[in-house]
Amino acid sequence: MKIDVIISADDIKDEKIADKSVVIVDMLRATSVITTAMDNGCKAVIPVLTVEEALEIAGRDRKKYILGGERNALKIPEFDCSNSPLEYTREVVKDKILIMTTTNGTRAIKRSAAAKNMLIGALINGAKVADKLVNLRNDVTIVNSGTSGQFSMDDFICSGYIIKCILEKTEVELTDISKTALYVYEKNPDIVGFIQNASHYKRIQQLDLYDDLKYCCKKDIIKGVPEYLDGVIKLL
Amino acid sequence: MKIDVIISADDIKDEKIADKSVVIVDMLRATSVITTAMDNGCKAVIPVLTVEEALEIAGRDRKKYILGGERNALKIPEFDCSNSPLEYTREVVKDKILIMTTTNGTRAIKRSAAAKNMLIGALINGAKVADKLVNLRNDVTIVNSGTSGQFSMDDFICSGYIIKCILEKTEVELTDISKTALYVYEKNPDIVGFIQNASHYKRIQQLDLYDDLKYCCKKDIIKGVPEYLDGVIKLL
Repeated sequence: MKIDVIISADDIKDEKIADKSVVIVDMLRATSVITTAMDNGCKAVIPVLTVEEALEIAGRDRKKYILGGERNALKIPEFDCSNSPLEYTREVVKDKILIMTTTNGTRAIKRSAAAKNMLIGALINGAKVADKLVNLRNDVTIVNSGTSGQFSMDDFICSGYIIKCILEKTEVELTDISKTALYVYEKNPDIVGFIQNASHYKRIQQLDLYDDLKYCCKKDIIKGVPEYLDGVIKLL
Repeated sequence: MKIDVIISADDIKDEKIADKSVVIVDMLRATSVITTAMDNGCKAVIPVLTVEEALEIAGRDRKKYILGGERNALKIPEFDCSNSPLEYTREVVKDKILIMTTTNGTRAIKRSAAAKNMLIGALINGAKVADKLVNLRNDVTIVNSGTSGQFSMDDFICSGYIIKCILEKTEVELTDISKTALYVYEKNPDIVGFIQNASHYKRIQQLDLYDDLKYCCKKDIIKGVPEYLDGVIKLL
C-alpha cells in the first residue's frame, strides 16, 4: 500500500487521487464537525460550495436540515451552526441532514471527486480511518484541505497520525511528503502545542476557539468514519 | 518579509511567485551543479527543457559549450557531463557556457519565469543566497524542484537552512510550510542522515553517488549566487 499526502485543496490533481482511497482532512474544523455530527445521529452531510446553494437546498424543507459552516471562520448569517464541532450535539443534529459549506474542507471534498473511495478524517477518528483504509486495500492519498490554498500544520500533523496508525497494521510505501508528515507527528506528542505555532492559530486565538482546538486534538474519541459518495456523506 | 515554500515543480503557480524573489532549489543535484560550475569559472548556464534543444544550441559552436545534465539521474548520450557537481571542475568549465537539461531543476526554473528575481540555491551556497534575499527586500518563495512532481525531503531541508539564515538577518513572516521546513532543518543537524530516509536516496545508492551526496550536503562552501535572467543564469 502506497501512501501520499496532498498539502492543500489547491494542489489536488486527478492523477494523484484517481483509483485511490482518499481521506479528506480539515481537522480545524470541517472534518471534525462532520465526524462529530454523524456520531451524534446526523443522518447525512451534504457539502456544498456556496451559501446560496446551501440555502436553496434547506429552503425545500427547512425542518429536515441543519445549515452549518463558516466564512472567515465565522458563522454564516441565516445558518444554524458555525464551524464549531461543539455545537453539533445530539439535540441539534439527531435525524437531521447537515448542509455544510466551509472555505477549505468542502472545497477539498468537491475537488476529490475522482477518488475511488473518499473518507472523512480527523484526529478524533484517526485510528478508525486507518483501519478502514487498511481494509479497503487501495493506495491512499491523504488530502489536507489546508487554509486558503496553503499548507496547514494542523492537517499535516493529523495526516502523520493517520499514517502512523496504518503503519501499525500493514506494510506501506511512503512518499517523502508522507514520511515528513509521520516525522512531524512522531516528534510532537503535544499536538496542541505544535498547532499553536501554526498561522491558523492566531485566528483561533482571536475568535476565542481554544475549546474547539482542544476538542479537535483529541485522538480516537469517535469510532465512525463518514464516507462521501455521490454528493452525500454518510456512515456506510 | 514573507517567506513561502512551493514543494515541487508541478505545484508552481504564477500567483505564488509573481513579484517575489524566487530561489530554485534542486540540491540533489541540479542547483548544486550550477552553483559549482559558476564558481569554477563557467561564464553562464543556459537551462533547457529538452535534449534536442541542448544539442541544437551546442551545435552552433561546439567548443564554446559544455553539455550537462541527466535523464533518470544518468548522463545523456552525446553530453559532456552528467549531473554530478564533482565533474564540473575548473579544467572542464572555465570560460565555457554550460547548456543544461535535467528532469526537475531546469523545469522548475522554466516554470518560475514570473518571478521578480530568480536565484539558484543549494546548501553549498545557502548563506549567501539568504544574504542576497535580505538585500533584495522582496517577499520570498523558495521553489523546491522536487522529484518527478513530488515533494523531496532533500530540497525541503535545504529550504529550512536558507530560511534559518534569513531569520538571523531580518524579521520574517513564515507560512506554515516555511515553518515546517525550518523545523525539519533545526531538528536534523545531520543532513546526510536525514536525506538517507528520502525516496531519492535509493537511486543515489543504486548509482553509487554517495560522494555527490556528501558534497551537496556541505554548507556554504561557495560564495556565488547564480541568478536567472532572460533565459540565462549568470553571477550578477
